Amino acid sequence: MFVAKVTGSIVATQKVESMRGWKLLMVEPYRLEPPDNKKLVATGRTFVAVDTLGTGVGDFVLITQGSSARFTPETNKLPIDAVIIGIVDQVHIEKACVYHRESQTQ
Amino acid sequence: MFVAKVTGSIVATQKVESMRGWKLLMVEPYRLEPPDNKKLVATGRTFVAVDTLGTGVGDFVLITQGSSARFTPETNKLPIDAVIIGIVDQVHIEKACVYHRESQTQ
Amino acid sequence: MFVAKVTGSIVATQKVESMRGWKLLMVEPYRLEPPDNKKLVATGRTFVAVDTLGTGVGDFVLITQGSSARFTPETNKLPIDAVIIGIVDQVHIEKACVYHRESQTQ
Amino acid sequence: MFVAKVTGSIVATQKVESMRGWKLLMVEPYRLEPPDNKKLVATGRTFVAVDTLGTGVGDFVLITQGSSARFTPETNKLPIDAVIIGIVDQVHIEKACVYHRESQTQ
Amino acid sequence: MFVAKVTGSIVATQKVESMRGWKLLMVEPYRLEPPDNKKLVATGRTFVAVDTLGTGVGDFVLITQGSSARFTPETNKLPIDAVIIGIVDQVHIEKACVYHRESQTQ
Repeated sequence: MFVAKVTGSIVATQKVESMRGWKLLMVEPYRLEPPDNKKLVATGRTFVAVDTLGTGVGDFVLITQGSSARFTPETNKLPIDAVIIGIVDQVHIEKACVYHRESQTQ
Repeated sequence: MFVAKVTGSIVATQKVESMRGWKLLMVEPYRLEPPDNKKLVATGRTFVAVDTLGTGVGDFVLITQGSSARFTPETNKLPIDAVIIGIVDQVHIEKACVYHRESQTQ
Repeated sequence: MFVAKVTGSIVATQKVESMRGWKLLMVEPYRLEPPDNKKLVATGRTFVAVDTLGTGVGDFVLITQGSSARFTPETNKLPIDAVIIGIVDQVHIEKACVYHRESQTQ
Repeated sequence: MFVAKVTGSIVATQKVESMRGWKLLMVEPYRLEPPDNKKLVATGRTFVAVDTLGTGVGDFVLITQGSSARFTPETNKLPIDAVIIGIVDQVHIEKACVYHRESQTQ
Repeated sequence: MFVAKVTGSIVATQKVESMRGWKLLMVEPYRLEPPDNKKLVATGRTFVAVDTLGTGVGDFVLITQGSSARFTPETNKLPIDAVIIGIVDQVHIEKACVYHRESQTQ
């Protein structure tokens, strides 16, 4: 899995039938900044993931890719390869907290 | 999933039997331009995806990769690893619309 | 899927039993040259794929990766992650033909 | 699989139901330093993996990605794409030991 | 699949139960050197693969990644994403032999 920030959303009217009604979010993977791993930084990459948790723009989320994206009850058998499986509250690196949802002004 | 632009098509006469009749499109993944995420830019990468939605050159589409590409009713059990699951109408980033199909002169 | 050029072959005498008898080809992925997408150029990457179509060195082929490589009748349940599913005859980008098998002098 | 160092952990209160109770660790893939392969060096990449072995920050672990992450008894059918399958004690390259858990002061 | 050189091995005492007894090898992917494809060169990347064929350090092997790594009789249902499916004897590129196991003084 990887940590990503929700940056936006997609509207697609014409789509594969089973995809109707699913929220499609734009997400950007984040990584720890080397060499100190003291903060999360953007990677500049762009993915689209299905959301079933009610996340909003600015949230940091945990994303599962590949066939496992079909292993939540809601997304079972959907033709998707990425799903949000959690909203990140905190990221701890060694003894420091490098991300805390409450304290974000994002 | 990822957003891509349809750039062309492929003709392949000799192929695995089950692939006969499927439309094969050339697609180029797009990403949000860092650091502002204010527009979609080309990545320079090239993929081939099966289309079941009737998309045309210049359309922006949503692509699913991997085993999940076999999870649309039409592509069930095909030996493919990429399929178009939707035609993108709009991409919203924070409060801005960075892509709108109608307004494209593309 | 992606477009690749067949560059050679591999001989492996000691192998997993089910792999006996399969032709293993060296292939190099190609991509459209940015920003004009007017021709296919080599990526410098190297993969090995199973061939069931009788392709030869110099042919451009369409390759499926991952679990879907096991979804052709011949390769069903083989421990492989890449298979040639078609021999490319033509690649069309917008109104131009950027590759035509007949006209290639390799 | 790949070798990674456990760098931290994630707290996610809102998540897909089946993910409750699983320990989510931040891990950084390591690779052998070219051209001599005499030591493991950080890659600067960041992943999240499920841990069922009781690993701690600083441990080097072996990580399986993709659908196979669902093939341990504990993680069967979880919507995850990365799991720790072992804690690395030693890495031997040719005749040298490039990593030995006991001797790490990490 | 890809061609890789076996560079070493891993010892992991604490691991997922089903992984006990399997040989875990460090491997480095090789690719053809562009633009001439006249020899195999190291990529500097590092993976770990299960070996069921008795390969040794210095051998060039053929590696399958992803779910297909679970499709050899021995590795059926193991939580692994990479397995050695053959020991490479020769690599032929166009009319030249760019690798021959016998002639390697490795």
